[in-house]
Amino acid sequence: MENRKLRMGMVGGGQGSFIGAVHRSAALLDGKIDLVCGAFSSRPDVAIDSGKDLALPSDRVYSSFQEMIEKEKELPEDIRMDFVSIVTPNNVHFEPAVLALKNGFHVVIDKPVTFTLQEAEELAKVVEETGMMLCLTHTYVGYPMVKQAKELVDQNKIGKIRKIMVEYPQGWLSKGIENTGSVQAAWRTDPQRSGKSGCMADIGTHAAHLAEHVSGLKITHLCANLNIYGEGRLLDDDGDVLLKFEDGATGVLSASQVATGEENALKLRIYGEKAGLEWRQEEPNTLLVKWVDQPIQIYRTGGNQGYPLAKYTSAFTRTPTGHPEGYLEAFANIYQSFAVRLLKEINGDNQEVDFPEYPGIEEGIRGMKFIDKIIESNDSDEKWTRF
Amino acid sequence: MENRKLRMGMVGGGQGSFIGAVHRSAALLDGKIDLVCGAFSSRPDVAIDSGKDLALPSDRVYSSFQEMIEKEKELPEDIRMDFVSIVTPNNVHFEPAVLALKNGFHVVIDKPVTFTLQEAEELAKVVEETGMMLCLTHTYVGYPMVKQAKELVDQNKIGKIRKIMVEYPQGWLSKGIENTGSVQAAWRTDPQRSGKSGCMADIGTHAAHLAEHVSGLKITHLCANLNIYGEGRLLDDDGDVLLKFEDGATGVLSASQVATGEENALKLRIYGEKAGLEWRQEEPNTLLVKWVDQPIQIYRTGGNQGYPLAKYTSAFTRTPTGHPEGYLEAFANIYQSFAVRLLKEINGDNQEVDFPEYPGIEEGIRGMKFIDKIIESNDSDEKWTRF
Amino acid sequence: MENRKLRMGMVGGGQGSFIGAVHRSAALLDGKIDLVCGAFSSRPDVAIDSGKDLALPSDRVYSSFQEMIEKEKELPEDIRMDFVSIVTPNNVHFEPAVLALKNGFHVVIDKPVTFTLQEAEELAKVVEETGMMLCLTHTYVGYPMVKQAKELVDQNKIGKIRKIMVEYPQGWLSKGIENTGSVQAAWRTDPQRSGKSGCMADIGTHAAHLAEHVSGLKITHLCANLNIYGEGRLLDDDGDVLLKFEDGATGVLSASQVATGEENALKLRIYGEKAGLEWRQEEPNTLLVKWVDQPIQIYRTGGNQGYPLAKYTSAFTRTPTGHPEGYLEAFANIYQSFAVRLLKEINGDNQEVDFPEYPGIEEGIRGMKFIDKIIESNDSDEKWTRF
Amino acid sequence: MENRKLRMGMVGGGQGSFIGAVHRSAALLDGKIDLVCGAFSSRPDVAIDSGKDLALPSDRVYSSFQEMIEKEKELPEDIRMDFVSIVTPNNVHFEPAVLALKNGFHVVIDKPVTFTLQEAEELAKVVEETGMMLCLTHTYVGYPMVKQAKELVDQNKIGKIRKIMVEYPQGWLSKGIENTGSVQAAWRTDPQRSGKSGCMADIGTHAAHLAEHVSGLKITHLCANLNIYGEGRLLDDDGDVLLKFEDGATGVLSASQVATGEENALKLRIYGEKAGLEWRQEEPNTLLVKWVDQPIQIYRTGGNQGYPLAKYTSAFTRTPTGHPEGYLEAFANIYQSFAVRLLKEINGDNQEVDFPEYPGIEEGIRGMKFIDKIIESNDSDEKWTRF
Repeated sequence: MENRKLRMGMVGGGQGSFIGAVHRSAALLDGKIDLVCGAFSSRPDVAIDSGKDLALPSDRVYSSFQEMIEKEKELPEDIRMDFVSIVTPNNVHFEPAVLALKNGFHVVIDKPVTFTLQEAEELAKVVEETGMMLCLTHTYVGYPMVKQAKELVDQNKIGKIRKIMVEYPQGWLSKGIENTGSVQAAWRTDPQRSGKSGCMADIGTHAAHLAEHVSGLKITHLCANLNIYGEGRLLDDDGDVLLKFEDGATGVLSASQVATGEENALKLRIYGEKAGLEWRQEEPNTLLVKWVDQPIQIYRTGGNQGYPLAKYTSAFTRTPTGHPEGYLEAFANIYQSFAVRLLKEINGDNQEVDFPEYPGIEEGIRGMKFIDKIIESNDSDEKWTRF
Repeated sequence: MENRKLRMGMVGGGQGSFIGAVHRSAALLDGKIDLVCGAFSSRPDVAIDSGKDLALPSDRVYSSFQEMIEKEKELPEDIRMDFVSIVTPNNVHFEPAVLALKNGFHVVIDKPVTFTLQEAEELAKVVEETGMMLCLTHTYVGYPMVKQAKELVDQNKIGKIRKIMVEYPQGWLSKGIENTGSVQAAWRTDPQRSGKSGCMADIGTHAAHLAEHVSGLKITHLCANLNIYGEGRLLDDDGDVLLKFEDGATGVLSASQVATGEENALKLRIYGEKAGLEWRQEEPNTLLVKWVDQPIQIYRTGGNQGYPLAKYTSAFTRTPTGHPEGYLEAFANIYQSFAVRLLKEINGDNQEVDFPEYPGIEEGIRGMKFIDKIIESNDSDEKWTRF
Repeated sequence: MENRKLRMGMVGGGQGSFIGAVHRSAALLDGKIDLVCGAFSSRPDVAIDSGKDLALPSDRVYSSFQEMIEKEKELPEDIRMDFVSIVTPNNVHFEPAVLALKNGFHVVIDKPVTFTLQEAEELAKVVEETGMMLCLTHTYVGYPMVKQAKELVDQNKIGKIRKIMVEYPQGWLSKGIENTGSVQAAWRTDPQRSGKSGCMADIGTHAAHLAEHVSGLKITHLCANLNIYGEGRLLDDDGDVLLKFEDGATGVLSASQVATGEENALKLRIYGEKAGLEWRQEEPNTLLVKWVDQPIQIYRTGGNQGYPLAKYTSAFTRTPTGHPEGYLEAFANIYQSFAVRLLKEINGDNQEVDFPEYPGIEEGIRGMKFIDKIIESNDSDEKWTRF
Repeated sequence: MENRKLRMGMVGGGQGSFIGAVHRSAALLDGKIDLVCGAFSSRPDVAIDSGKDLALPSDRVYSSFQEMIEKEKELPEDIRMDFVSIVTPNNVHFEPAVLALKNGFHVVIDKPVTFTLQEAEELAKVVEETGMMLCLTHTYVGYPMVKQAKELVDQNKIGKIRKIMVEYPQGWLSKGIENTGSVQAAWRTDPQRSGKSGCMADIGTHAAHLAEHVSGLKITHLCANLNIYGEGRLLDDDGDVLLKFEDGATGVLSASQVATGEENALKLRIYGEKAGLEWRQEEPNTLLVKWVDQPIQIYRTGGNQGYPLAKYTSAFTRTPTGHPEGYLEAFANIYQSFAVRLLKEINGDNQEVDFPEYPGIEEGIRGMKFIDKIIESNDSDEKWTRF
């Protein structure tokens, strides 16, 4: 069995990008992946400078994703990239993803998976037709304590689920920074690049995915109230949503980008008949387990507590308990799940992989539907919109 | 000016009652009020034993509130009670309150103020006609840091309010303890004693009052989803509500009594254009002030931080900063606001009292309307119900 | 059996006193004790005004503790005070305590029990000779979670104790407020009123008492480094102490009144072979139990966690879990332990009281010795001073 | 200017090593360094397997550090490693470091820098003679909020420092796991591999370094009490130390590996006349600033609070505020400081680097002296040992 590093190409993520650098750090962290090429920007000077910063040879720095895919395909098999990581704004997801898949390159892609639901459905067909892998970086499920929470639910430790509360307050758009130079804020508040929703597409989808992922329950109905608080904004920057889930659970989802003073305060609470769970992204190495008739327990990343996921600990936790791990490590865990499977495929290994799945195109479609349904509900006078 | 102690009689609150003991401790804490008599229970033996426990003379322990009011009225002015504290289940609020007021006794009463909105409105008329005082013990506004939060809003320190999130998760009804001996649980889940709502009447009203009180904004529309999770229950034990407030603010209210493992986790967040505020009842001496462009500040009860309410500090805080004060002290602050005004009236003092108002019958009516509107919304397929 | 209220007289605690008001609230909170008389100040006008504030009849407001004891003794048995509460500065503890005891009045007294160790030992003799009760208000052991911690130690749940860390950082003397009007600061930094130590006498004794009380282990050796940081101060305002305990445990005690920005951050950690315990006074309703091979548990006041002290819950906790209780309630618990025993004695009740003991003269002597030994160690070049 | 990646070789860190993997992740995280070769273990099979795991070509996987240094030196300049990272137990630091430096390879080395103080002093001479770079990975100073704390001290925001409290409780050696298979525990409790101290060498040195680094004050005297609690252990697994610093500051250092249930709870508090600082490693993105007369402020990694270190933010923080960063990122920051300078040297760049220094051989010597002085003090009956 060949034990080689995987080779990654990147679309987007040039100088000034936030998420591009995150993807690179996450991919490199475990020493399983090398960045070998990139089409970092539609602006040639930015593309070239970005490549230099990253110490890439100039002939692997491309001026467009089309060029990259075409040229890389011509390279010898042991040199060309194995997969592309797509970190562009939402409106530039679909095209490079389809082109990559059709030319034999696997895809890692940021969420929301595409610009529209229709694109997502088409992309799903391409994934199916080509048989290639597509990994959607729903980062937050990469945290060990989120995996722990899911395991507790799956093992029925918390009992039948009644109530799910998920919230994602941020404050970074409290002021109109899209008008004062923030590149991030500019594209995320722009319908031409973000799509039909702002806050709900950007972070509401994370919250919804996290709730469904951990609880194992799908949202069946929702009732949304979206708001635009930033002066002159065209897309929602805040919203609250009542939720009904399968099997009689209910709950509420709140997301905001104008929750002044909040950082990235994603928080999930799930209450079952036997216990409640609480996890906060800003203190991600802690999971509170609130038993119905025992004292609350504090589960900790890497802890010695009979962690049900112990078999994955070495993969998903890189340090002993008490050495905090964060967002990049969670992100790296998504890449890790992807890389393990990709290496297996490259090696023609037929053994079953006993390793958590990465989020894929199905989660991507569901996220796009969530956006559509949220908008539909917000525009409706009916209380409940079926999801 | 006479500086005498006020004399309190109590209706309800016999052995086994939670809230009766709370009212007594709160009333006694500052040495301004004595308990002089009581009609503690409709069961004569409980009434008598409760009186003995409280070291009351047996001739001031009555078998009914009717008897108490009648007999006390006949006592000399310098001996008879000044006011009654009514701490019975919701269905026994209206009658003793009216009788007391009409016979010249002021009233302190637990919330919800009555069993129905109609009763509340009738009671308001009696208050007006008699000119007597009625104090509604919305405890949570008695906390110094809630007063601090309100002051920050009133002084426009946090800017125009955009979003209000208030939640009140409890877990004490996760199991069906109303069937296994809990007196508390039994009456709170019984429509004959609690009224048309369970969770929303018991704690949702607290949450709504707190949100409106601190923000200074009234709820104008709501969209409720109530749930009954406890087997065989007839009243809501959980619910989530979308909210619209005056002046364009929006938000969400969640209340639950089946949030397994939660204690009494009332929490209020208000986000304005300039700052966000966060207060949690379980750590009540801390108020987080989250500035839009400065580090978060931790305001603390009794702190040396240029506390805008400094003039009331000595009244509302009994210890130096760092000596935690809790629920009883907050409760005592409501009694304090009431006692200061009652003493003033007794003394015929015409000077303006520079002291925060206690919650009264208006808040009581608003709470009853809230319950009605929540039920109406829950029963409706329309998204928004006007409040 | 007579179920009457106990009658308290107070020495000190006039207008402007912090601790006098605390003692009164604590005594009154449970409705078992009435304040009936006082010698609140050596300044007659302050004494009289304080009495008026407290709505006491003027003939029970005395100009000196001598007068109070003499006059009260002459009152009928069912009217005169049962005990005195002494809340004066340290140098005015011994005389009123001895006089009260010798005249048949029990004593509650703040710590340190006297001005010098010699006084404490003499006082112990008087207690013994008179057979009267003396209660020392070491407040912090009144907290339910401190009682819980002690119970866990006593039941050997945490195993053989290895390390004890206790700290008491305050910041209120960071600035020289004794020179700018603070009465509190003035007497506490004055050797004529505080004795030979400042910080260690005031709060170091609390820390040492708490450590010994909960661990059940006595300090056998100590090594102290005391400091004076405030300009012109004569007494220590800061210090650190290495500790050896019985049975091989060791640890460290830190106390400071110049720990800028700290409030009243008393914290105790005890590490045994099977678990560690952590309790913080500023969040007193929480006790962390850190098991060697299980997740950390959060014990909470009033919680449903199989609390080993359940039999005392109703006495030491006045509200359901999640309704925070604080410093006054802890203080009231000390009074409660005293009152239960005093009532029993008054009633001539021979039944054993199944109720935790209050701190008494032995703890008082030990505290005074601690002060002496700390000073001795600080003055010595030897590492260890035997305690 | 050449913008190439740096090439790292590793000594130690084979399969099963904790710190080796940490060094690799930290080095790779920012895409500036590649791992090109290693002598991962003295056991040939482990060495080879480790190389395979890391996808290294077999001819760059060596059987000893001597071989690695010899062979790499013979490789072309644009292929051979630039520096070695030494992650072996303490007794195998000196030799490979000296050999590397003398053969033209820079060194990154874990702490304590050597086995004895004498070795450290000899190593310093080699560093000076060769003019090569040596970076000591005192990880904790790599955290952004530690840099922030230091900046606040350096800018005199907290005033003259009075008291420094630093503690490092761990519980991982509460049980005798060195006897039941833990490789980590085995060498750290073995005098032949760890040196003359266990706990103080392993984590006490971190605590002392952190205190001196942030405060800018050197320890001048210390008074140590070391303990061995684990049965059969030969080295200290616990200890407390009184400290005197320059300029009149005092304090205390506690370190333990038998603080049951603690993870890696390094905590630093520094109290100046104007403010106190508090930082905890387990929540490393938060720094509390406790002003003498203003509310406490919460400084946060990446926050928008007018962070005085803004010029370094992009280098030391990889994500927006609220996306937690942890131990690996802190470690990466040390590598980052080293890499920036090494690249500058390789490029012959004469411009001043405006970038924080990495810890070097001086810190290494000071750490070794700290160990010696701690042992000397522990063995002495004198209170103070001069440092």
